[in-house]
Amino acid sequence: MNALPSDLVRAAQELSEAVTRPIPGSRKIHVQGSRPDLKVPMREITQAQTPTLFGGEANPAITVYDTSGPYTDSDYAVDLAAGLPAVRAAWIMERGDVEQLPGLTSAFGRERAADAKLDPLRFGHARAPLRAKPGANVTQMHYARRGIITPEMEYIAIRENQRIEALKDSALRRQHPGESFGAALPKLITPEFVRDEVARGRAIIPANINHPECEPMIIGRNFLTKINANIGNSALSSGIAEEVEKLVWAIRWGADNVMDLSTGKNIHETREWIIRNAPVPIGTVPIYQALEKVGGVAEELTWELFRDTLIEQAEQGVDYFTIHAGVLLRFVPLTAKRVTGIVSRGGSIMAKWCLAHHQENFLYTHFEEICEIMKAYDVSFSLGDGLRPGSVADANDAAQFGELDTLGELTKIAWKHDVQTMIEGPGHVPMQLIKENVERQLEKCHEAPFYTLGPLTTDIAPGYDHITSAIGAAMIGWFGTAMLCYVTPREHLGLPDKQDVRDGIIAYKIAAHAADLAKGHPGAQVRDNALSKARFEFRWNDQFNLGLDPDKARELHDERLPHDAHKSAHFCSMCGPKFCSMKITQDVRDYAAEHGVDESAALDEGMAEKAAEFRAQGAEVYHKA
Amino acid sequence: MNALPSDLVRAAQELSEAVTRPIPGSRKIHVQGSRPDLKVPMREITQAQTPTLFGGEANPAITVYDTSGPYTDSDYAVDLAAGLPAVRAAWIMERGDVEQLPGLTSAFGRERAADAKLDPLRFGHARAPLRAKPGANVTQMHYARRGIITPEMEYIAIRENQRIEALKDSALRRQHPGESFGAALPKLITPEFVRDEVARGRAIIPANINHPECEPMIIGRNFLTKINANIGNSALSSGIAEEVEKLVWAIRWGADNVMDLSTGKNIHETREWIIRNAPVPIGTVPIYQALEKVGGVAEELTWELFRDTLIEQAEQGVDYFTIHAGVLLRFVPLTAKRVTGIVSRGGSIMAKWCLAHHQENFLYTHFEEICEIMKAYDVSFSLGDGLRPGSVADANDAAQFGELDTLGELTKIAWKHDVQTMIEGPGHVPMQLIKENVERQLEKCHEAPFYTLGPLTTDIAPGYDHITSAIGAAMIGWFGTAMLCYVTPREHLGLPDKQDVRDGIIAYKIAAHAADLAKGHPGAQVRDNALSKARFEFRWNDQFNLGLDPDKARELHDERLPHDAHKSAHFCSMCGPKFCSMKITQDVRDYAAEHGVDESAALDEGMAEKAAEFRAQGAEVYHKA
Repeated sequence: MNALPSDLVRAAQELSEAVTRPIPGSRKIHVQGSRPDLKVPMREITQAQTPTLFGGEANPAITVYDTSGPYTDSDYAVDLAAGLPAVRAAWIMERGDVEQLPGLTSAFGRERAADAKLDPLRFGHARAPLRAKPGANVTQMHYARRGIITPEMEYIAIRENQRIEALKDSALRRQHPGESFGAALPKLITPEFVRDEVARGRAIIPANINHPECEPMIIGRNFLTKINANIGNSALSSGIAEEVEKLVWAIRWGADNVMDLSTGKNIHETREWIIRNAPVPIGTVPIYQALEKVGGVAEELTWELFRDTLIEQAEQGVDYFTIHAGVLLRFVPLTAKRVTGIVSRGGSIMAKWCLAHHQENFLYTHFEEICEIMKAYDVSFSLGDGLRPGSVADANDAAQFGELDTLGELTKIAWKHDVQTMIEGPGHVPMQLIKENVERQLEKCHEAPFYTLGPLTTDIAPGYDHITSAIGAAMIGWFGTAMLCYVTPREHLGLPDKQDVRDGIIAYKIAAHAADLAKGHPGAQVRDNALSKARFEFRWNDQFNLGLDPDKARELHDERLPHDAHKSAHFCSMCGPKFCSMKITQDVRDYAAEHGVDESAALDEGMAEKAAEFRAQGAEVYHKA
Repeated sequence: MNALPSDLVRAAQELSEAVTRPIPGSRKIHVQGSRPDLKVPMREITQAQTPTLFGGEANPAITVYDTSGPYTDSDYAVDLAAGLPAVRAAWIMERGDVEQLPGLTSAFGRERAADAKLDPLRFGHARAPLRAKPGANVTQMHYARRGIITPEMEYIAIRENQRIEALKDSALRRQHPGESFGAALPKLITPEFVRDEVARGRAIIPANINHPECEPMIIGRNFLTKINANIGNSALSSGIAEEVEKLVWAIRWGADNVMDLSTGKNIHETREWIIRNAPVPIGTVPIYQALEKVGGVAEELTWELFRDTLIEQAEQGVDYFTIHAGVLLRFVPLTAKRVTGIVSRGGSIMAKWCLAHHQENFLYTHFEEICEIMKAYDVSFSLGDGLRPGSVADANDAAQFGELDTLGELTKIAWKHDVQTMIEGPGHVPMQLIKENVERQLEKCHEAPFYTLGPLTTDIAPGYDHITSAIGAAMIGWFGTAMLCYVTPREHLGLPDKQDVRDGIIAYKIAAHAADLAKGHPGAQVRDNALSKARFEFRWNDQFNLGLDPDKARELHDERLPHDAHKSAHFCSMCGPKFCSMKITQDVRDYAAEHGVDESAALDEGMAEKAAEFRAQGAEVYHKA
């Protein structure tokens, strides 16, 4: 953290045009729910008409799931210093089960708040925290199990459907049957389906009562596959301004969740800026901050200090905590013969603590007390896989699976408290061993949502691990992983910069979408169909805009054919004007249509004279437009 | 083709330093076979010693398959105007079944040769072509079926093994059991195994007798998964110089085959330059050039003209031809209702020809005559999938599978002539439909090698189709595809430039290697293990050099920690000096080693005092190096 405080504040209050300008060809829309304050944001991509040459039909706007929050809404004035609107505030308060506290509960939080030196760094509009009233449980799972459909659940049902019902029986809805493993997917998501999945523990809604700015979303294998992007500074690089900008950048490209993995200084203040400006759930690994508090000496960690950290973060609004409670003393030696030992930071911290104290992991021994905290704020568990493999050699070994089984036991305990829970998974796994991970996780963890990092399917491509892992991520998503933690090209080499974040997110949007297609998620193929139709009809701008990264597609195209006229040209630089196969196909169709028969009949009747006629016309491949 | 001829020649005779400089950390080695002129080139990556802190052991050099030819051999002086050494010339001649022709057989070839205006463009050392003696059959399949192990087969056996036997029982050979579909993989590849696979038609050795510069390689699912890179100019861009440079660039990154898909002018002369300088098999789609000869008017194509083109290219040394002989008249109408019709250029040309003439595809009706040409030069078939799907919506449909079944019939005919044959496959296929493609291909095409383009698993990411397709490519490779045709980021948007070629190849090397790991190819995991061990031991340079792209890995690392000292630092910019999980793991191991017990025993005996001792030492995470 080398920048001066004043620089930090200035930069954190301004976002670059790069992260807020409108997404090309799109506008923000809001779908109205059952109550006036329930408006679900989506992104609508407009399409041009099919060129006359190809039939001249109108093409419907395509609605897509939108994670970017108000930042991409041209009607919204960004003000980072004020934070985002608290869209969930009324819903939380009207349930009548929370109380506003007079100040922070955490001793560390109070100490930071009282330190005037930090004033220049501080987010100016922090609210007093909310907590469940004594004896109350404010988790979405608790409500779900009592049969209550919360506004959050209704919001999610609308959001997941992406207005596909508006397309009615359009050919764009044509879709291959999926192959889903486990529960059957409904044709449309209903609020009751959302409630039921949360009640069963098959899905979670990360939604801390202190993060009312968050637009509700769900993580479960019977919903759209989600992706997480990590941000966070380290002792060596990156400050507050950069982290807030990275957050907004990440959600612009489609990150459904963001984890703040900061390990540097001013973690507390940085986090406040991030959460107050985050329309997506924020996850953390609280052990990182706890370790900072003891000067990086793992042996000096204590339950009391860790507990204070959990409360500190819960009252800021962190939506889920990675807790490495499955790193048990007896599993640690199982890693000694590995090629890459323990590669999880949290896992190695806890392993070191266990060995140093020769005691069982305090996260495990205090697990029920952690549950008490989680349910008072509705923080979800992300049970960490501290012993995940760091190389394909170490995949699916006794340490990894021993920990996974323990996470299953802990899931049962969390659910006893109605605490929402997901399970973290690997890592580095060759393709033939991926399915076993999901099957075992579903069985041992009772269908709690699986949240995996990749997995990387080979270790030999540093600099390209967004690709080695997108392969594994797509497959594991298909098999049932609910959320995919992204990997960037800089994995194993350094902290990602903005371009790395974009590359990592797009690779993971691809993996998640490929998984949704394979599972047969309702409407998943609409966007593919629309884009392919646009491609076939040479609607270049529509092809770009329907893609995951319109800017990149346009840039790659324009390097060769920069002129606007080429955007509607009926050829491209790959084949040139004479060789376009799409154009030839269209000629074939036109021929059939002009002659009042379909091609099949023309051929079946053996009309050789029609062939001659087609030829006589010239049958030009390239009709000058 | 806007450049002047003199520019073309100059540029084609010089390669940039970018494509010829030595690959970092590597040297070219040659493994001696059973005869003096059989020397198999490989790349040896040297490794540093493990740092003393981690045990100080020596690490063996790792040998990897090398496609880059003499260009990366520091002892070789590149001379494009002379062409590469003819490593196979003696083997071809000593079989006694070929004759040298007085000149070119092709009328078109003779016409070009006689045109003095082309002199400035021409490769200066073209040889008179070879052809099988009357009645002879010179295919590798023909030899294999007669029980002959050719030098090419021995070369391939040595090459495929990558000297893993030299590692003896090193821990680096540890490998997960693979899951292979179909034939069992041997522990080591023998020349007899190569012969047997070729004889059965399960593998091909593309090796035209007029391409003696080619270093023999094999395409079959019981061998390493191969990748193909496409180069080629079009009417709109790219010249000879750029194409030769792209060839050398492509093989540097690991392309096993290169297809020249040129459709612009001077195809004949460009191809000569490429083949004379290509140490890898070169494939073409002869219909592209045939169409050029009739001014781009598909209806004017004739069998006679096409036949002349096949001979022209066969006598230059093209190793395999894509022939779209399965695009039958009755399949064409099946594409009319598709979202993206016919997207293969060759397929659409033949479809147009069929409709215009209302006759059956002349490639189908003259197939046996084509076989006669193929066996006279040992050109392999790559039976083209002209009706492959161009969108996920069109995957696995009646048109695609109808054509595939026809390709199976044609395979039987080719094999009757002992002509080597592989089958091209899609395209765009969602994950849940990929396996069906391989299963059907294996069944209907009698286990002839499958050669697929991707497949892309979603259509929504123009600009990133190397990734959408690497997912499908890895999976289809695992299921049994023998060669993967790469897709670059510029797919659907324009012709790839050098950076696109590199990105596409690396994505496909990843997919192919992930497939080899999953199938359990012998020794496939050695490189992963070595790289992971290097990573764990903070041998940064070894990590970079063992990767598929050392330059990129080093570049991404150095942007954050540029100093050489950091290359041996025991931390990296991701976590900083205090938080390195690998370092913590090493501390755990050291602790166990120092105390003369393994960690397991230390724990089982409940030695709390040892824990105290460990703590008292300080147990620093970061030992200053």
